[in-house]
Amino acid sequence: MKRKVKIGLVGFGTVGSGVYELIKKNGAVISKRTDIELEIKTICDLRLDYVKETVSNINLTTNWKDLLEDDEIETIVELIGGIEPARTIIIEALKAGKNIVTANKKLLAEAGTEIFELSNKKSAKLGFEASVGGGIPCLQALKSGLVGNRIDKVAGILNGTTNYILTKMEEDGLSFAESLAEAQKLGFAEADPTFDIEGYDAGHKITLLSMLAFNKNIDYKSVEMEGITKLETIDTEYARSMGYAVKLLGIAKRSGNGVDISVRPTLIHEEHPLASVRNEFNAIMFENDMTGPVFLYGKGAGSLPTASAVVSDVIQIALKSDVEESAITIEGNAEIVLSSARNSRYYLRIFTDDKPGILQKLAGALAENNVSISSLVQEEYEGDHVPLLFITHEANEAGIKKSIEKINTFDFIKKPVMMIRIED
Amino acid sequence: MKRKVKIGLVGFGTVGSGVYELIKKNGAVISKRTDIELEIKTICDLRLDYVKETVSNINLTTNWKDLLEDDEIETIVELIGGIEPARTIIIEALKAGKNIVTANKKLLAEAGTEIFELSNKKSAKLGFEASVGGGIPCLQALKSGLVGNRIDKVAGILNGTTNYILTKMEEDGLSFAESLAEAQKLGFAEADPTFDIEGYDAGHKITLLSMLAFNKNIDYKSVEMEGITKLETIDTEYARSMGYAVKLLGIAKRSGNGVDISVRPTLIHEEHPLASVRNEFNAIMFENDMTGPVFLYGKGAGSLPTASAVVSDVIQIALKSDVEESAITIEGNAEIVLSSARNSRYYLRIFTDDKPGILQKLAGALAENNVSISSLVQEEYEGDHVPLLFITHEANEAGIKKSIEKINTFDFIKKPVMMIRIED
Repeated sequence: MKRKVKIGLVGFGTVGSGVYELIKKNGAVISKRTDIELEIKTICDLRLDYVKETVSNINLTTNWKDLLEDDEIETIVELIGGIEPARTIIIEALKAGKNIVTANKKLLAEAGTEIFELSNKKSAKLGFEASVGGGIPCLQALKSGLVGNRIDKVAGILNGTTNYILTKMEEDGLSFAESLAEAQKLGFAEADPTFDIEGYDAGHKITLLSMLAFNKNIDYKSVEMEGITKLETIDTEYARSMGYAVKLLGIAKRSGNGVDISVRPTLIHEEHPLASVRNEFNAIMFENDMTGPVFLYGKGAGSLPTASAVVSDVIQIALKSDVEESAITIEGNAEIVLSSARNSRYYLRIFTDDKPGILQKLAGALAENNVSISSLVQEEYEGDHVPLLFITHEANEAGIKKSIEKINTFDFIKKPVMMIRIED
Repeated sequence: MKRKVKIGLVGFGTVGSGVYELIKKNGAVISKRTDIELEIKTICDLRLDYVKETVSNINLTTNWKDLLEDDEIETIVELIGGIEPARTIIIEALKAGKNIVTANKKLLAEAGTEIFELSNKKSAKLGFEASVGGGIPCLQALKSGLVGNRIDKVAGILNGTTNYILTKMEEDGLSFAESLAEAQKLGFAEADPTFDIEGYDAGHKITLLSMLAFNKNIDYKSVEMEGITKLETIDTEYARSMGYAVKLLGIAKRSGNGVDISVRPTLIHEEHPLASVRNEFNAIMFENDMTGPVFLYGKGAGSLPTASAVVSDVIQIALKSDVEESAITIEGNAEIVLSSARNSRYYLRIFTDDKPGILQKLAGALAENNVSISSLVQEEYEGDHVPLLFITHEANEAGIKKSIEKINTFDFIKKPVMMIRIED
């Protein structure tokens, strides 16, 4: 006996229309596999004329409250994004006993506490697989496949736009601006790309991954985020010559009782699985006490990949009538490790004038904070500056930052120092 | 309120002791995440003195029927492997309403029909995540995370022993025999490695993956399997020089109404994610209509990684009180595509005498079956033979095989021709 699950869909944009298309195309195979028949009963969107161009035989409304009042609808899929009105819709829906499936990483990462608490009251369930990693079932792997593990580290390429740009810079020698323009032309970057290139999107995703991995609340505002706008082709080229790739990584590590979490450009060795993730693909690596490393890779965005995650959540929620499973287990707030407690190797790129005595001053500024140099390349004079590329031995990040602050005040410095952490 | 799940464990070998260790170490964190407390109530093993060295406060028995008669035990974990008595234990347990979690790929792939049918009657559930990919939650990804997709292809490095051997051959230039000896020394290969190196283990795993991916019964005996014993260092070296890696792949593709399934050495391009999977690691790639490629990577064997999969299954079964989910959806038998219907590019390695007219005869034997040559390298005379390395254009596999049959009869041939398929 097939069971019918009626869905209320809020937001018929890129992902919403993907969910519609997926169910239309693969509804039969889903029902064969799970005994569940999915039906979008009502779509809520402000652009009803636009929606009508695509769909038929589905109720349409511009008022989300209609979905809450419909007893037949058991799951509401929220795909409008942003904080409001998404937040109110989700909270009211959970209170009304409707299950919620959402792709809204911003909302959950920045203001998810109340939503997680409501969903933990278990009158309705929350699924948010689509909020991280698009079509890659990474939250499910974390919550369920790896449930028996202590997770020690999560590291991921969590944003396709920036990974596409970095791939172009590395492989084609394009500048950041040229790569961004190409990404925009191909639809991999938005007209206003700030959210992606400054690392905020990756920040939302590593925040959510970390809450699931470490079972602690993570304050999004305390996550250190650095984007890729200051990277230059010389960085990706030099990294490559040293056997490294530059990737924008979201990283969160268990560190004592705290969590060391950040989003920033990182040098990773070319043999590391994350180094070979190219173009718009995403990947997530978990390091776990029982399984060792587990790595997942796929398309991190797009209409149908994200719809695949939405539908998986709808099905999983429908199959689990047992309400004992928590949507997300959070015990208190994570203590966020300060960068002063972080030790690593670093790459420094310094553009200087071409005159004597400079290296001595730079070396002095580094030595002052116990930063010792592992390798140094001085490239040919280029335009109006000499590029100096340092790799340090393991050093304390606060020390490095103090040194950089001082170096930036030297009158022979042509551009603020670029520092990239090396992840070993 | 925590719910206690009592487990009966059959077989306290490598994986069984891993399950014990995992629950001991991470039981508290599991219970925090899921509200389920796992308890191994009884262990069944023939070597009770050995078991007693490790465990205390757990009932011990040598008779598996004791577990079936214990009403408190809700899930039985079968980790003895092989066909009998595992088959009888699982069938009797399912009939008695006990859930079953097993890592027994051989049993399920060769004789799983009755077990799948019983588990589909839904009086008890079956979990077998641990049977494929060790700690990689790949069956869960397939059944649940990708439930909304039509799966078009599954390809995997499914055996750590052979991947370790191939890595040694490729990276260190060792022979097959030397690499095998090293794998045995490090515990990555058994004293009798037949099962791994002939591809049977990978065959079991690709069979199970395919049944889940295509929802058809796959007859294990009809799966074409070729191991790695005939590979030589010249193959891995030449492949590398051409930008390819040699990997033992289990591959299954949807092909019309049928499934094209095989296990064999394959050349894959170095930029393909599967090419960078080194040493004892496993990886599985799904190609899906909605998500595109999804790739999972991790440790495919070992005590704790496999235990992680077992425990994940136990938890998932305990959480899903809804018995509507089928353990495995199978509708009829898959039609297995014959290799005569397969077109691909191929690598051919031919060892010949060093005398005139040979190339003409080889080229003629290939041309007879419409096999045209894309590239050819004749290496220096080596020992007693001249190595000739061909890459063909796309050709029909039956044609290639006919050509090879003929070539093998030529009196100047020093060793049977080695053919490796190129996966593009």
